[in-house]
Amino acid sequence: MPGVRHVVTLTFRDGTTTEQVDDIVFALGALPSVIPELRSYVVGPDLGRSDGSASLAIVADFDSWEGYEAYRDHPDHVAVATEMIVPVLSGRSVVQHETT
Amino acid sequence: MPGVRHVVTLTFRDGTTTEQVDDIVFALGALPSVIPELRSYVVGPDLGRSDGSASLAIVADFDSWEGYEAYRDHPDHVAVATEMIVPVLSGRSVVQHETT
Repeated sequence: MPGVRHVVTLTFRDGTTTEQVDDIVFALGALPSVIPELRSYVVGPDLGRSDGSASLAIVADFDSWEGYEAYRDHPDHVAVATEMIVPVLSGRSVVQHETT
Repeated sequence: MPGVRHVVTLTFRDGTTTEQVDDIVFALGALPSVIPELRSYVVGPDLGRSDGSASLAIVADFDSWEGYEAYRDHPDHVAVATEMIVPVLSGRSVVQHETT
């Protein structure tokens, strides 16, 4: 049965501090321990080596679309998104695709 | 030694056909056979289940930044990008981050 991969890039506003980004990475990194539907979860802040890059990438793998929805709607994920990410967010790009 | 992950989302112009997207996915999928620096390469077209999603995601893993540069500059990759992707591209978001 195919799985689902959720790929996100986030761009943070000018003035967002390294500490804020570190806090977001840390908070996101805690989600797999509370969301068992996350089969794999890789979060990484951009190295700043290419002009025009976004700020952070998230690649999340699930066994099913329902697993993705459980992550999307989980209160801990929603809390990180609304309390820590949205206040510094200037752009977001998302793809969801099947995996084999 | 940490590796490098290259995460890209591409958004294609309205009117881009499924066949054009399939051709791009197929052409990208051939790159690992000619670019040995690609340790892992996952390409997936968006399922269209979330409003405002981009069209295609690419997640490429390398052992080093030099591996990423070999991919970036490889003539077969450049050919797919310039001949197949750029003509239908309306947006692109990129992150490069370390992996452990």
